[in-house]
Amino acid sequence: MNYTRLNSHDSPDEDQDGSGKPSVWLELHNRTMEREKLISGNGNPSYGEGATSFADDDDLLDISTDTDGSVSFLGGLSTRRRRSVNGTENGSDSYEGGTAPDQYEDFHTIDWARDMQRYRKEHKAVSRRSSRSIWGRLKGSFYAVSAWVVVLLVGIFAGAFAGIIDIGATWLSDIKLGVCKDAFWLNWEQCCWVQNNTQFGNEDDIQCLTWFQWYELFGLQDPQDWRAYLVSYLMFVGAALLMSALAVLLVLAFAPYACGSGIPEIKTILSGFIMRGFFGKWTLLIKSITMILVVGAGLSLGKEGPLVHVACCCGNLFAHLIPKYGKNEAKKREMLSAASAAGVSVAFGAPIGGVLFSLEEISYYFPLKTLWRSFFCAMIAAFVLQAINPFGNDHAVKFYVEYNTPWYFFEIVPFILLGIFGGLYGVVFNRLNLKWCQLRITSKLGKYPITEVLLVALATALLSYPNPYSRLNTSQLIAALFRECGPQDAIGFCDYNRTYTRTDQHWYPSAEAQPGLIAAMWQLPLAMILQGILTVFTFGLKVPAGLFIPTMAVGAIGGRLMGIAMEQLAIEHPDLLIFTGCFDSGKCITPGLYAMVGAAATLGGVTRMTISLVVIMFELTGGLTYIVPLMIACMVSKWVADAFGRDGIYDGHIHLNGYPFLDGKQEFMRTTLAYDVMSPRRTDPPLLTITMDTSTVEELENLTTETRFNTYPVIVSKDSQRLVGVVYRKELIHALKQARKNQTGIVSQSKVYFTRKVPKFQVPGIPQHLSLLSILDGSPVTITDQTPMSTVVDMFKKLGIRTCLVTHNGRLLGIISKKDVLRHIAELDHQDPGSTFFH
Amino acid sequence: MNYTRLNSHDSPDEDQDGSGKPSVWLELHNRTMEREKLISGNGNPSYGEGATSFADDDDLLDISTDTDGSVSFLGGLSTRRRRSVNGTENGSDSYEGGTAPDQYEDFHTIDWARDMQRYRKEHKAVSRRSSRSIWGRLKGSFYAVSAWVVVLLVGIFAGAFAGIIDIGATWLSDIKLGVCKDAFWLNWEQCCWVQNNTQFGNEDDIQCLTWFQWYELFGLQDPQDWRAYLVSYLMFVGAALLMSALAVLLVLAFAPYACGSGIPEIKTILSGFIMRGFFGKWTLLIKSITMILVVGAGLSLGKEGPLVHVACCCGNLFAHLIPKYGKNEAKKREMLSAASAAGVSVAFGAPIGGVLFSLEEISYYFPLKTLWRSFFCAMIAAFVLQAINPFGNDHAVKFYVEYNTPWYFFEIVPFILLGIFGGLYGVVFNRLNLKWCQLRITSKLGKYPITEVLLVALATALLSYPNPYSRLNTSQLIAALFRECGPQDAIGFCDYNRTYTRTDQHWYPSAEAQPGLIAAMWQLPLAMILQGILTVFTFGLKVPAGLFIPTMAVGAIGGRLMGIAMEQLAIEHPDLLIFTGCFDSGKCITPGLYAMVGAAATLGGVTRMTISLVVIMFELTGGLTYIVPLMIACMVSKWVADAFGRDGIYDGHIHLNGYPFLDGKQEFMRTTLAYDVMSPRRTDPPLLTITMDTSTVEELENLTTETRFNTYPVIVSKDSQRLVGVVYRKELIHALKQARKNQTGIVSQSKVYFTRKVPKFQVPGIPQHLSLLSILDGSPVTITDQTPMSTVVDMFKKLGIRTCLVTHNGRLLGIISKKDVLRHIAELDHQDPGSTFFH
Repeated sequence: MNYTRLNSHDSPDEDQDGSGKPSVWLELHNRTMEREKLISGNGNPSYGEGATSFADDDDLLDISTDTDGSVSFLGGLSTRRRRSVNGTENGSDSYEGGTAPDQYEDFHTIDWARDMQRYRKEHKAVSRRSSRSIWGRLKGSFYAVSAWVVVLLVGIFAGAFAGIIDIGATWLSDIKLGVCKDAFWLNWEQCCWVQNNTQFGNEDDIQCLTWFQWYELFGLQDPQDWRAYLVSYLMFVGAALLMSALAVLLVLAFAPYACGSGIPEIKTILSGFIMRGFFGKWTLLIKSITMILVVGAGLSLGKEGPLVHVACCCGNLFAHLIPKYGKNEAKKREMLSAASAAGVSVAFGAPIGGVLFSLEEISYYFPLKTLWRSFFCAMIAAFVLQAINPFGNDHAVKFYVEYNTPWYFFEIVPFILLGIFGGLYGVVFNRLNLKWCQLRITSKLGKYPITEVLLVALATALLSYPNPYSRLNTSQLIAALFRECGPQDAIGFCDYNRTYTRTDQHWYPSAEAQPGLIAAMWQLPLAMILQGILTVFTFGLKVPAGLFIPTMAVGAIGGRLMGIAMEQLAIEHPDLLIFTGCFDSGKCITPGLYAMVGAAATLGGVTRMTISLVVIMFELTGGLTYIVPLMIACMVSKWVADAFGRDGIYDGHIHLNGYPFLDGKQEFMRTTLAYDVMSPRRTDPPLLTITMDTSTVEELENLTTETRFNTYPVIVSKDSQRLVGVVYRKELIHALKQARKNQTGIVSQSKVYFTRKVPKFQVPGIPQHLSLLSILDGSPVTITDQTPMSTVVDMFKKLGIRTCLVTHNGRLLGIISKKDVLRHIAELDHQDPGSTFFH
Repeated sequence: MNYTRLNSHDSPDEDQDGSGKPSVWLELHNRTMEREKLISGNGNPSYGEGATSFADDDDLLDISTDTDGSVSFLGGLSTRRRRSVNGTENGSDSYEGGTAPDQYEDFHTIDWARDMQRYRKEHKAVSRRSSRSIWGRLKGSFYAVSAWVVVLLVGIFAGAFAGIIDIGATWLSDIKLGVCKDAFWLNWEQCCWVQNNTQFGNEDDIQCLTWFQWYELFGLQDPQDWRAYLVSYLMFVGAALLMSALAVLLVLAFAPYACGSGIPEIKTILSGFIMRGFFGKWTLLIKSITMILVVGAGLSLGKEGPLVHVACCCGNLFAHLIPKYGKNEAKKREMLSAASAAGVSVAFGAPIGGVLFSLEEISYYFPLKTLWRSFFCAMIAAFVLQAINPFGNDHAVKFYVEYNTPWYFFEIVPFILLGIFGGLYGVVFNRLNLKWCQLRITSKLGKYPITEVLLVALATALLSYPNPYSRLNTSQLIAALFRECGPQDAIGFCDYNRTYTRTDQHWYPSAEAQPGLIAAMWQLPLAMILQGILTVFTFGLKVPAGLFIPTMAVGAIGGRLMGIAMEQLAIEHPDLLIFTGCFDSGKCITPGLYAMVGAAATLGGVTRMTISLVVIMFELTGGLTYIVPLMIACMVSKWVADAFGRDGIYDGHIHLNGYPFLDGKQEFMRTTLAYDVMSPRRTDPPLLTITMDTSTVEELENLTTETRFNTYPVIVSKDSQRLVGVVYRKELIHALKQARKNQTGIVSQSKVYFTRKVPKFQVPGIPQHLSLLSILDGSPVTITDQTPMSTVVDMFKKLGIRTCLVTHNGRLLGIISKKDVLRHIAELDHQDPGSTFFH
């Protein structure tokens, strides 16, 4: 036997037959071999001619399995989830399981370098073909523009889905409170708009004769009547429960991947992980429907994160129209990056912010070509959404605001305070939410997802209805908080009695608080606390749930409160030094701006976004003037939050779920060497290898049955330990099988050669030789044992490799896999690697 | 002798002594050695203790030298330029030549991987120290926030410089036409503003009593008088000549690097090249002054590119305040990326566009941390500029426009036509300009820079004055072209006679052309052609010269002409199907928007910018509405231009000057292997190497004097050819010298060991052994000969390495340097590598 056990590479392999897969790699190997022939003049590739090679290897990311076969790093819920996914997938996801062979297996990691290599080969083949004939040229042109066609389609569909979801969710939200008598499918605004072309404002104050509150349908007329209140309350709670129940049932029955915001998974997938069905048709459909339901139910969640997921589903579906994207996981991810930009673009109507969000938060590999395409995709999506016009204004922006007053330098102090508030909120929220999700995984709680959703929905509805601010649709609340109070604005916190008096040179406004404002002073804080607490329990439920809107709501309330306080201070003490010159232009403080700054601060604290957050917020206001306050809040918030730990909520959930995510953003700052990380360790048996010209067919067959490694290094001889290349498990098994079947004279004792120097003359009695040079990968990435780990981590990140081999003075010493790197980073971060990454 | 000649690595080395350099690498080597001891139990590092190691090697990018010692890839002008730079540098650039030792020599390329490694070591050392004492903690905090302090300073100074340059250039521009009698230091606007608070508009039409045209000073009153015209003409030409002469003299005398836009050089430097003095104090000062002069002279150039250079100078100067940036070339480039964002930010008042420009066009290595800092820097710079307020409006934006009408779908056709126009203009302009610059290098033309500048200035002034549009300051012309015609707008092409008549349901406006518009119909095309032709000759002169403004002017004129034509068409034929519903909102076509789209198209064609261009243009209008037209124009323009060759003007100039720039954006799509690229080639003598334990001191000394290679691979033995590591020329020379001086018993016949296995017992009569393990770099990047070149190129780009070693079956086979890669790419592009890259 020419091999010994290799520790810690005991990854399982499902031994699926690889026949019928495309022969791209064969091409490469043949080319390699031809070159080898060319170099040295002769050679005997006895195998390469009749063989069928493999699409790619399926190097599993070395994850151990539970006894039931489910992959363990999906956390406690993985078993159920994965089973359901598989069930769904078989029935529906024909894009992924159809005629096109799977490059990689589910829950495996991809090899970026190799996929890109494959793409380059294809590209070259196409451009060679296209120069030959007119038809070829046409195909070549289509090949060139196909990416733009795909992003165009993705943009159109992402925009359309966003529009439909918006319209549906608004209608369902309003249905909880009443119904349009003549046309029940209209929401409150449309219903009343038809009637009297009224301004969008507070619902109670506008006479709308076609819209009936529920108690009116029950024959009650006086809203102050306790029976009317009770009827409305019950209808509200009942509708919320019904919608939530429907949502969770749909998710669990048809598309378990549709739950949550999806952003942690998207990040992981875009970093090169395979989760089949996550971007499938069913996920798209169910996530869209259930999002309407849960937003309608008034749960403390938003649809912004899930919209990114929906857009990525569109991206995945359309990517499959073009083979160069559909069949190449690395290239497909470029499409997904563009799609995620479109998702944020439609979520906020902020295309540039969307692109930057994709760049900053989501994407892993983001070449400039993709940047431009993402921008195109985001723009198209925003325009389609604007054409559908669910926000009901001209701006394609969700919370469009226009302020009339500038900000003053002294306001930097409250902005910094809001930043600190946002940072602290982010830390507290993230910790509580992650603790609760951890509890859900480890305790029995996770076994009753339907009950949990219903309980949260019940609590939300019961607690929200009495408070007018909580009762509002969260998006509407935020929009109201961002707005400046107009003269006829009748929402509670705008209930001032404004008068202006002129003394000597200045205008002194006064703004006496009226009952509405006084009530708001305790209703708003209560709404804020309620929102914060409910969101902790809501994010992580088995329904689609985004974080952006509830987090922004908390910050917006906090900011608005501070804005109101500052305004009152300025009005009460206009002679204070800091307010000098402030009232010259009539108005001094813009509480709406404070709300916006507060929203940016909490969002920054929770997600740790930076530039994309500022740009999204900037696109909401559309003026450069307010970028500085937003930037201050984001910076302070991030600094404060980072002091307690650098992970944003998405990274936290990635860790919690144990996804194998190698963060491209965080610099590896340690000084360990490759020697410290590679396996085998010093006390372990040496690395398992194959010699290039002394193994027999039987030995290799035993090797593949006795061990389950995916990569076998090939060396010159046991003495020299010089590396020749690597062979991959699947290719080896297949090649041996094919050789036994098709080549005469191949028996168990046949010598296998991974070199061109195969003895030419066959002595009678000695079995025929077998050359497997064609399956040898002659260009594995190698490093020396003295290489600093920071360089190694850089190579894994930037080159997108899965394993690299470690040599010392030209001798093969060990191997480092992506898992080894992840574990090493976790170890250095003083975390228990067993519990965090691979529990 | 244990070495043989190595071909094509005949790089010269100036043999500068490296003593006194910091010992970071010693630390690393010692650590490596300690680890080696740790691993195997014993070892005899007889050299490491008393030795001083080196900051870094100075691996030259293998460029051949002319006989006079100047480096040849700077093109025909390199000799003069470099000499002058050296002269300047010695006198002034103390930041770079002071106490801090030079990491790299001038015109060398840096090793990113190694610099980042060094940074990580320092970072670790600081964080270790800072945990010890309060003082250490304070220093640690400063270390952490220092980057923000630097970008703050860079932002402030970039904004301040931009403001000063703007004010100065406006004043000098106006001085050509007249003078403010009471206060000559005021420009026309300030002068007249003081008097009658007038609107900024066309100068001829506003009565401004304190501003005197030159002929008025000569006692002439009637502007129609031919003598008045002659006096004004002569003054205009004379002033232009004077300013141009002064500018070119200043540049040639004090800062030759101040010429041109600087962007090709900035791109090259940011990709890891050293050009000392390019960002020096003198360059900053002279470039600022001469930019005022040349813009004032009315040459066909802009100040936007040079402003990026000025901002980068600020970045470089302030980076030297903090050792972690000043002394680390790789980290310093992060600062320069941020500074270049600030440069574009102040050039257009577009901070987000500036960041994207830095990301898309300029930067090479751009981690997200840098993105956020760049944004901060760009914002600060924009705000400082706004505080200085040279544009005279509230928007901090150079060409702020607000349109009242939307665009209609049918307008996509003219926008696409503008895109095609822009693309074709880009191709023609780039070819002509590059041809002319090539001629300047190869012919005698380059020897008379002053004469050339004067001739171009003379031609520009003579031809511009008669045409009222050419006579205008180019920025003012563009601003006028972008604006919608107001009722009292009196500039020629707004000279309509507008009337509105109502028939049945629609408003039918009419706009009869008046004399001004009719004159504009031939003056504008003439101005466009003149601008285009002059720019071909201007960009490349020995004065600061940006391309943005003249290119935008050409496109803006073309777009405005098309807009006027479309408007007339719509007014003449309002019943055409495409114009249905167009006049419902009063106005149908916005010619100003066409001008903006045209400007974006020409700029896209010339520079091939994509997203950053659209965002810059978007920030000018401040509304999402017009992003789609801009995007269409940019996309079409880029596609059309790319059909004729992918290089933008900056890449063209990089190639022309032969800068060693490895474009990170262009994917390497070929299928060649490392074997095809490495040296030595098959017919050459084998690679020159050192054996790890058989060389003598004398042999190595001969090696360093007889050969001039920078990297010597160390192998186990001549038979096995197994790679141990590499030693660098400078370190080897120094180590041998030190050993001769400080270690007793080291003679010529002493054996040199690059391994820990140094024989312990010294036989009397046999010379003392010398261990040089401490200077061995045990972690060179290695690849196999079968590695696809696309992977190799990726490694060079993404890891930022300078050389990598090629092995076959564990034996060292050859070496690939960055130069080999560049030459290989050039060869594949069917270019003559000798003439293009290394002429």
